[in-house]
Amino acid sequence: MARSALTASGARLASLLPADVVVTDPDVIAFYARDRSRFTVHGWPAAVLMPRTTDEVSRCMRAASELGVPVVPRGAGTGLSGGANAATGSVVLSLHRMNRILEIDPVDRIAVVEPGVITAALRDAAAAVGMSYPPDPGSVDMCTVGGNVATNAGGMCCVKYGVTADFVIGLEVVLADGRVMRTGRRTVKGVAGYDLTHLLVGSEGTLGVVTEITVRLVPAAPAPHTVVASFARLADAGAAVLEIRRAGLVPSLMEILDRTTLGAVDQLAQMRLGDEVAALLLIQGDGADAADLVAAADEICTRSGAVDVASSSDPDEATMLLEARRLALPALERLGHCLLDDVAVPPSRTVDLIAAVEEISARLGVVIGVFGHAGDGNMHPTIIFDDADPRSRTAALAAFDAVTQKALDLGGTITGEHGVGQLKRGWLSRELDPAARAVHVAIKAALDPQGILNPDTAIPER
Amino acid sequence: MARSALTASGARLASLLPADVVVTDPDVIAFYARDRSRFTVHGWPAAVLMPRTTDEVSRCMRAASELGVPVVPRGAGTGLSGGANAATGSVVLSLHRMNRILEIDPVDRIAVVEPGVITAALRDAAAAVGMSYPPDPGSVDMCTVGGNVATNAGGMCCVKYGVTADFVIGLEVVLADGRVMRTGRRTVKGVAGYDLTHLLVGSEGTLGVVTEITVRLVPAAPAPHTVVASFARLADAGAAVLEIRRAGLVPSLMEILDRTTLGAVDQLAQMRLGDEVAALLLIQGDGADAADLVAAADEICTRSGAVDVASSSDPDEATMLLEARRLALPALERLGHCLLDDVAVPPSRTVDLIAAVEEISARLGVVIGVFGHAGDGNMHPTIIFDDADPRSRTAALAAFDAVTQKALDLGGTITGEHGVGQLKRGWLSRELDPAARAVHVAIKAALDPQGILNPDTAIPER
Repeated sequence: MARSALTASGARLASLLPADVVVTDPDVIAFYARDRSRFTVHGWPAAVLMPRTTDEVSRCMRAASELGVPVVPRGAGTGLSGGANAATGSVVLSLHRMNRILEIDPVDRIAVVEPGVITAALRDAAAAVGMSYPPDPGSVDMCTVGGNVATNAGGMCCVKYGVTADFVIGLEVVLADGRVMRTGRRTVKGVAGYDLTHLLVGSEGTLGVVTEITVRLVPAAPAPHTVVASFARLADAGAAVLEIRRAGLVPSLMEILDRTTLGAVDQLAQMRLGDEVAALLLIQGDGADAADLVAAADEICTRSGAVDVASSSDPDEATMLLEARRLALPALERLGHCLLDDVAVPPSRTVDLIAAVEEISARLGVVIGVFGHAGDGNMHPTIIFDDADPRSRTAALAAFDAVTQKALDLGGTITGEHGVGQLKRGWLSRELDPAARAVHVAIKAALDPQGILNPDTAIPER
Repeated sequence: MARSALTASGARLASLLPADVVVTDPDVIAFYARDRSRFTVHGWPAAVLMPRTTDEVSRCMRAASELGVPVVPRGAGTGLSGGANAATGSVVLSLHRMNRILEIDPVDRIAVVEPGVITAALRDAAAAVGMSYPPDPGSVDMCTVGGNVATNAGGMCCVKYGVTADFVIGLEVVLADGRVMRTGRRTVKGVAGYDLTHLLVGSEGTLGVVTEITVRLVPAAPAPHTVVASFARLADAGAAVLEIRRAGLVPSLMEILDRTTLGAVDQLAQMRLGDEVAALLLIQGDGADAADLVAAADEICTRSGAVDVASSSDPDEATMLLEARRLALPALERLGHCLLDDVAVPPSRTVDLIAAVEEISARLGVVIGVFGHAGDGNMHPTIIFDDADPRSRTAALAAFDAVTQKALDLGGTITGEHGVGQLKRGWLSRELDPAARAVHVAIKAALDPQGILNPDTAIPER
């Protein structure tokens, strides 16, 4: 689309909407044009729409619908898959101004929020009344609840508490043509009609714009007990993870870091983890049985061949014990540019995946650090490359493809919590069978017949 | 449709399908023509299809699709909303022959089953490997997992563990035209594509025929501790329920029975509960903190004015303490014909609902027993009437309408776990807004363009 046409779109949108909702300042547009993904493309959107109310979102969508302009809904832009990247000719619809916590009810155990609320703000507001909102993506201090809903974000809590979808019980949604729809309800149970709530969660802005979110809360858990075990052999760490699951333990956190990641952490923070450590396992329990759980996990790790095991019930010590996990990504980012993968496999195959990544790393001569959620099989193999070197970029992409294919071969999925976006749109057709792909296309057409909602991402191509 | 046309449909289906899959024996057809609902209508289906494999289900749907014959998928027929009632001219597709448990994996904590597996059989198979499949609808010993998926069935476990949807992670589905689609996956997490799994769960056979179900399992909990408290005033029981939620307790069961139900139970089983008892509250805890939870609940009930509190950690005593709940429906059924409602309100409004039911009962001169899931606000006001007396039927329906409307007025839903079916199809339009109704119709058309899957139930009329 020519620059003049873009300007025309922006001008026509401006004529249909309140003046302060439509922003066309090029510097602002540049900031809103993309998310934090690598290896994705973006263009130059005609405008950024910044509505403050559901009614304004509805007017934005009516206007875009009339003009046939593609709309890219956006939370905080912390996504890693290009799900919020905007093409030239589209407009970005940012929900950041809709950032009110409307209600927190500790008896009905729900919260009602606008989509632009920062996830940590909801977490803190729940904690203030003795409740907990568990979803904790890595970007929890920056990302928004609306963005979490769009991608069905996860985090370290998922092994016990589940993902964002497990907490969302109702939505207000503006449809492509501006109509406003409520889904779900405020009750714990309810089976009236199709579950449109969960059709919208994880749909990455392709089916509607979420303008209000009702989530369930759970009573705050006591401070967790922690155990950290280091292993000289990856297979031993894997055996410990399986044994912990087989024993019926339900940790509130079970994370793993591989040798490459640990080396990077050691370089960054001089933690003196030791060269012989091939894997670090971090486990927490937060229930009434936390002490028993940690004791049992300690015993299992020792029996599985851990070279060192440390545990603590002290919150400050727990923070120190988890420091290596917190530093994993920053440490890897010091080695070069990072391409994070986000595959998930059945928990029993987690170590097979990590071993396969080591083999791929050696075969392709690419450094890959692996860390992630050992308890639920969701791993983040992180490929280190040099963005300025085309050969390095090519090798990184080859490694990314090999890892993603391996996850599928192990009975897993191409994305555990980051989303499909632009980055994995081609992969979606390998995970979904032809009938499922056709149903995706049919549902998209049913809800967005013009195809204006985030058209270049997320769902299989027609 | 004339009888001859029906026979012609049956004959043509028979010509397209294996002989033993198509049953046209009138006695068999009569058995399969309806579920256990009241105040619903049914006709005389042309045949009952009894496939044994996914491929046979696919052939059934291809044949029905070619002939344009409506298909009513059916589990065990224990539904209470008319969701499996068949119209004249349709065929019933019974999944009862697909009853194999294909896999139980205690490390990945999943089970894979065919839809005709009895829910109790799955529960027992999970228990045999130290795991638990919590969903426990009242009909658990008769109903099927496929039926539970179709209606998103609940039970007494839901207050802690959630409903069927919270355990389903993947499906194999035969679409209206016979195509086979897989949804979801075997991994704990996964966000590739739309959540078609949960679109199908609770869709009451209107979007596809489920032929395989992957559910997650949880480690078996220790034997529960139990406390039962009787109250002379309903409001006191309500205050106890709210205080238990406010205190952050998470019981594994929290049930309530009202005065009418208790009177019926006393008549049936001479439990000598006493005339002064207006409500009975039954509470269990099953975690590591079960003893603490029961002690805290005991203390709260006493402080809230309970006239009698009994507790036990003994499983046999627990069975005795819960006997009144188990007998609630059989006892009410001895008073006359029963029309069960299934409304749910936010937990904080449970006692308001029960009080409103007492008022409706008095105003309309209809006996209504109330029992249900106090912990999650899902109540079963049970209207007693004489099916042979038109005036009694009319009064029962008026009471049913008044109770259902009251639930909506309290911010609740028309159905917590039984489903919409035929019984509440008219009500669905009161719960859903116009945009949500239109989206239901559009999704139905996208997946079943001919409208042959269970066309007379469940979703809003066009």
